This record gives sequence, structure tokens and C-alpha cells, in this order.
Amino acid sequence: MRAKSETRRQAILQAAAEVFQETGFERTTMSTICERLGYSKATLYNYFSSKEELFSAVVFEATEAEFQATLEALDSTVEDITLALELFGRRFLTLIYSPQVQAMRRLIVAEAGRSDLGKKSYELGPVRSEADIAQFLQQAMNAGKLRQADARVAAFHLRGLMEAEWFDRFLFQVLKEVTTEEINATVKRAVAAFMAAYGVVVR
Amino acid sequence: MRAKSETRRQAILQAAAEVFQETGFERTTMSTICERLGYSKATLYNYFSSKEELFSAVVFEATEAEFQATLEALDSTVEDITLALELFGRRFLTLIYSPQVQAMRRLIVAEAGRSDLGKKSYELGPVRSEADIAQFLQQAMNAGKLRQADARVAAFHLRGLMEAEWFDRFLFQVLKEVTTEEINATVKRAVAAFMAAYGVVVR
Repeated sequence: MRAKSETRRQAILQAAAEVFQETGFERTTMSTICERLGYSKATLYNYFSSKEELFSAVVFEATEAEFQATLEALDSTVEDITLALELFGRRFLTLIYSPQVQAMRRLIVAEAGRSDLGKKSYELGPVRSEADIAQFLQQAMNAGKLRQADARVAAFHLRGLMEAEWFDRFLFQVLKEVTTEEINATVKRAVAAFMAAYGVVVR
Repeated sequence: MRAKSETRRQAILQAAAEVFQETGFERTTMSTICERLGYSKATLYNYFSSKEELFSAVVFEATEAEFQATLEALDSTVEDITLALELFGRRFLTLIYSPQVQAMRRLIVAEAGRSDLGKKSYELGPVRSEADIAQFLQQAMNAGKLRQADARVAAFHLRGLMEAEWFDRFLFQVLKEVTTEEINATVKRAVAAFMAAYGVVVR
């Protein structure tokens, strides 16, 4: 029974991904997705309670592997902490400012007040990345690569610095495509500021 | 003619503010606002093309004075730059994380893709505050209170640090009311990190 459910869930996600891609989020209806699958509406709603929830699941599915890989790029074997943070930062910004993830974040903001989509997404996304970044920074502090500080606050500050230049443009949808050059330059500036604040003072 | 228009616009904003407050954004309709005013729908739409635009105008009207005052709190006569930034930061976070401004920002994010509400709001809000913060930091650099750096990037970093701890919780709507104590502590941590990155190195 469970296996069948998971197969169906995957079939729905696959069909939904196709329909969203073909017709865009706005013009996609749950009915269109049902038709594509030959499922009844009742069946579809049994798996996903709204178009928004379905869309969010589609994008999570599509980005989960990349998200995991990004967090794994917090590589404590890289000796130079500045390089390690830059490496991570480039992957992180590339991921969250991809058109796909931008669209998902916007949708979540718009829908978060109406359902528990916000809370669920918050736990799946930011909570995990905050914890992983804090843990990485704590290890770097313990290894003497960063000064001792509250690793959780340091993790927030690192992310805040990295997102600072684009945050409002993203929110207000005036952010166009972000180039690799822009990402590299932004990350370099953010990590430089972070290292000035959290690096070990050389005497 | 112009005077009459402005009078009507103010009357609409006043009535809309009342109705939004009484029934909430979701349940408010343009019709309800028309009824309150005794205006035709055509008249109302002549001034505001959607409920979203009207709501945004109501909130801008209500917060503009406070927004101005916040930017004026960037007081270059305060000798100690750390204190000046903390003073500004406390007012800034208090303003943008007030329930009213949070609601407006969410609405703009949700609507920005559908109209030019995003672009308009971006120019009225972030563009002005970014420019004012950068100008203040440039003056502090010129006065030798901060090290020489790109003042625009420094302004982004200051804001990024100040918003870092709440940004995601705000986006995903898991941010509850923010207390004055939390604001003070957050700002202190952000300004400390900022000063480590941009302060003048004492030799």
C-alpha cells in the first residue's frame, strides 16, 4: 500500500512538473494535472491539498539533490577557511537565486499566511541550512581558523552578508538574472567582511 | 481640479484604512470601500487600479513619516559611530518588522510579479534607504570614523547583518512579534560585526 502511494506521488510530481513547465504556474490548474494523469480530482487532492503545495513539492524534489550538495560543499577539509567559505557561498547563491528557487520562495511568501506551507518549508530549507552552517563554523572555531563566537549568530551573519546585495531586489522582483561573475564578486565581498568580523586576529 | 483630486485621494485612503483595519486585507473588497465612500467603482478605480495598490498606498501613507524619521536618525552629529549605527538600527528594525510594514512587504512580494507594484515600491523604499545609508557611511569614512571602502557595498552589508537573524523567519511567516529586547540585542550583534569589518583599525 505504501509502495503504491509513493509510486503515485512520484507520478503526480512528474506530471505536475511537466504541466507547470509547459503552461506556467498561474495558468496551471489542478484539473489539467488530473487530465494528464487520468486521475480523479479526489485522488490528486488526497496527495496535495492545493496547487501551491504541489508546486512547492515539485521544486523541492527538483532542487533537493543540489541543496544537499551545496551544504556538503561546507568542506572542513579545505585548509583555508576563506576559500572554503567562498566555495560554499558561490554554490549557495547560485542555488537560491536560480529562477526555480526564486519562484518557489516567492510562492511560499505569498502563501505562507494561508496555510502551513511556510512553516513546513522553513523547516525543510532554512532550518537545515542554518544548522549545517553553524556546525561548520563551530568546527572552524574549534580548529582555531575563526575566533570563538556564537556560531549560530555567525551563521546568520554569513548568510546575511551573502544575500545583502540582492535581497531587496529579489523581494520586490526587480532582480534580473544573476551572472556567475556577479555571484563571485558578491561572495568575495561578503566573505571578506565576514572574515574581518570573525577571523582570527593576527598579532 | 488637482486639489479636488488630492482631496478625493485622501478620502479614499482614509476609508480604505478603516475598512482594511475592520475586516482585514483578504475579506476587504473594492466594493466595500466604495460603499463606505458613496463613490462609484469607476471613480475608485480611477485612483487605484487594484485592492493591492490601494493597500500599499494606505500603508505607505501611514508609515512615510516614520520612515523619514528613521532615515533622519542617521545622525552624523553623534560622535561615536557605533552608537549612531545602533540608534539607527533599532529604529530601522522596529519600523520594518512592525506588523504593518511586514504585511505590506509580504503583499508586495506576492503581487510584484503581476504588476509594477514591485518596481514602484522598490524605488519608494529600498532605493531611498540604501542611498541614505550609503551617504551616511561615506561621510563617516571621510571623517575617519570608518575605514575607506565602497560605501554602497558597506550599506548593503550593514542592512544584511541587521536583517540576518529574522529574514527567513519573516519570509516564511514563522516570525512572531519582535520585542524591543530582541531588536536591541540583534542590532548590537550586527553593529559589532559591521564595525569589525568597516571600523578603523587601531594600531
